[in-house]
Amino acid sequence: MIRHTVVFRLKHPRGSAEEISFLRAGMALADIPGVEKFEQLRQVSPKNDYHFGYSMEFADRSAYKGYDEHPVHVAYVRDRWIPEVEAFLEIDYEPLG
Amino acid sequence: MIRHTVVFRLKHPRGSAEEISFLRAGMALADIPGVEKFEQLRQVSPKNDYHFGYSMEFADRSAYKGYDEHPVHVAYVRDRWIPEVEAFLEIDYEPLG
Repeated sequence: MIRHTVVFRLKHPRGSAEEISFLRAGMALADIPGVEKFEQLRQVSPKNDYHFGYSMEFADRSAYKGYDEHPVHVAYVRDRWIPEVEAFLEIDYEPLG
Repeated sequence: MIRHTVVFRLKHPRGSAEEISFLRAGMALADIPGVEKFEQLRQVSPKNDYHFGYSMEFADRSAYKGYDEHPVHVAYVRDRWIPEVEAFLEIDYEPLG
């Protein structure tokens, strides 16, 4: 199991229509083959400057690669992520041991 | 639900006895009242400089506060975390919407 997460902050004002549009479009990622346990999350710790997170799991690296290269993911990154995200950090986890 | 996560890097060499000792001691956090779905994780993305992660969930902010103030957590932070962790980032998530 690989858990792929990304924590991020948008360029849009909080609660704006643009923010809602960005997050709604992101739901399409959940339907990409291999994606399990897709979650859109609110980042609530005051100890960092990010506002949202996505989390999803893959059975293995092959499934992760398939997601990464999938046209729906590629289009989301190109058309929404790059223009609309101000800052982000990707963190990927595997079970320890 | 609040998911509390922390991604971190130790001062110890990778695979050292000190690293194993630190992670073993951290398992005690799982037994603190209110802690659910406790996980010790390996951070595997090349896009950041952290090596490990802890993840746990709380039913609500009261349970999170109880964990934060619990003597086992306070002692772990004082005796192990502060002396042995080189860098870390706390990220907390709640369901969106």
